[in-house]
Amino acid sequence: MRKTLLPLGRVYRLLEPGPVVLLTTAGKARPNVMAMSWHTMLEFEPPLVGCVVSNRNYSFRALKLTKECVINIPTAELAPAVVGCGNTSGRQLDKFEEFGLTAAKASRVGAPLIAECFASLECRVVDTRLVARYNFFVLEVVRAWRDRAVTNPRTIHHEGLGRFMVAGRRMSLPSRMR
Amino acid sequence: MRKTLLPLGRVYRLLEPGPVVLLTTAGKARPNVMAMSWHTMLEFEPPLVGCVVSNRNYSFRALKLTKECVINIPTAELAPAVVGCGNTSGRQLDKFEEFGLTAAKASRVGAPLIAECFASLECRVVDTRLVARYNFFVLEVVRAWRDRAVTNPRTIHHEGLGRFMVAGRRMSLPSRMR
Repeated sequence: MRKTLLPLGRVYRLLEPGPVVLLTTAGKARPNVMAMSWHTMLEFEPPLVGCVVSNRNYSFRALKLTKECVINIPTAELAPAVVGCGNTSGRQLDKFEEFGLTAAKASRVGAPLIAECFASLECRVVDTRLVARYNFFVLEVVRAWRDRAVTNPRTIHHEGLGRFMVAGRRMSLPSRMR
Repeated sequence: MRKTLLPLGRVYRLLEPGPVVLLTTAGKARPNVMAMSWHTMLEFEPPLVGCVVSNRNYSFRALKLTKECVINIPTAELAPAVVGCGNTSGRQLDKFEEFGLTAAKASRVGAPLIAECFASLECRVVDTRLVARYNFFVLEVVRAWRDRAVTNPRTIHHEGLGRFMVAGRRMSLPSRMR
């Protein structure tokens, strides 16, 4: 794996721009993976992330039971696999095998990293108060990995109904915002 | 104003890709505006949005008191104004005047739309259970406006420390995901 450890204080810089992510969980029989766009940062450090995992998703039960997951960030080359993950359910098939994704061992949680994604965030569920109402989980990122060779990641951003925006140019402005 | 009504069921397609937004509130003396990247969809329809407005932000008090706001979505031409809003506080200055933004009357809430933004979402606060812990507000979008002449909005996406990603090309893939 080409990913190395990323300081936890930098995690927000990966998630703030709103990429589609692939969420992995450890299932009973095998790990599963789902595409997810409904997530937001809640705190810088320790990094807290809020996300919606619907109770209609096969991953919901694994996340509730194990209280662990990994948020993996794909780039445009993986778009067909991402859509494949979104179109299918782990109830019926092994998505890793079906879409050519490689599960790599995480260091702090039971769910796997996806080797093909340039960044992976190992997470634990820390607050479930809004799960009953909105399927909204609060996660703490406990370990973060990033492939530093990928400097301008072409992340993909869902716009509904199969339409995606691909990350374009980067620009810097004199900002005092963190 | 060139914006026309957008069906509420389409709001998620604007917010899912993770753009920086400008949140307006009605203050006692004058309306205020802040830059915000920590937001996520929570439900399709009626559209629910979760977002973090820090209690260190001047907007926090207005949002808590009035329970109303407008989420405005800017494009790259407005980046200097967005950064300006992020670098300053409504305690000290009138950001509309300072950064050349035009406040337009909303139809369902007291906070103003920003005329220069291609989309504006009128919102009411519907759940404050996670405000004490995470400054996390749940909003319901009660009316949505969009300038339909802007078909490929160059939204901007914060990556921290003054770095922004600008929305690039769009692509479509055969997806069954909503």
